Amino acid sequence: MGVQQQISVVTLGVSDLARSSRFYQEGFGWAPVFTNPEIVFYQMNGLVFGTWLKASLEEDLGGANLVSPGAFAMAHNVAAMNDVEPLMARLERAGGRIVRAADAPPHGGYRGYIADPDGHAWEIAWNPAWTITPDGQVRFAL
Amino acid sequence: MGVQQQISVVTLGVSDLARSSRFYQEGFGWAPVFTNPEIVFYQMNGLVFGTWLKASLEEDLGGANLVSPGAFAMAHNVAAMNDVEPLMARLERAGGRIVRAADAPPHGGYRGYIADPDGHAWEIAWNPAWTITPDGQVRFAL
Repeated sequence: MGVQQQISVVTLGVSDLARSSRFYQEGFGWAPVFTNPEIVFYQMNGLVFGTWLKASLEEDLGGANLVSPGAFAMAHNVAAMNDVEPLMARLERAGGRIVRAADAPPHGGYRGYIADPDGHAWEIAWNPAWTITPDGQVRFAL
Repeated sequence: MGVQQQISVVTLGVSDLARSSRFYQEGFGWAPVFTNPEIVFYQMNGLVFGTWLKASLEEDLGGANLVSPGAFAMAHNVAAMNDVEPLMARLERAGGRIVRAADAPPHGGYRGYIADPDGHAWEIAWNPAWTITPDGQVRFAL
């Protein structure tokens, strides 16, 4: 398993997508790359930024209760499905706590969640649709 | 002011740098680009990842009390000192809340903090030391 210093996604839990979209789209001037009634994604500088309804993010985290402000998760994508569990095991040995054991989400791929020693949630994900370049640049795709 | 879909830094508030470093350096296998007794920075895929003692992050935020887990901030760096306040004003008009008015921090540059409608904190910063390429890639430098 090659080491990549790479954050694939930063996802914020939000309570009102329209209100949040106004801030990011009118305030920062950012254009979304994907929108549905639950989530808005923005292609950023080598990573993806997501605003997701907090209840959906909590459900994806396996039913966690996220405190607000502070409801967020980061993702680190790996190159192969078989990389997800070994990396989660290594992170657990290094002081992490498994939040959700790896399984296949409804939107495809394979992922689990592990919290760092301060409780910050990381999704470790294999997403066959998204490109990761050798230098870790992550591109949104459906 | 040109629009750049760019996250410069993701900073997590942590309570114990050694414990956190073990997770990121032994677990993920990441190498830091800068370490001092308060903060560890990692050069990532076009952005910088920081783990900062939570009390220091709170002080930088102007004395905010951050809840854990969920103590974090993101930064969006701009090209010129004079871009900081107009962008913060635009974000405020789009539903943001000023957390700390822009001023010059001890570590140099110029920055303020604004919270998105869900309370997620963004630092809007001019950092003359750090390079931002035209496509938004951010490189750590002292």
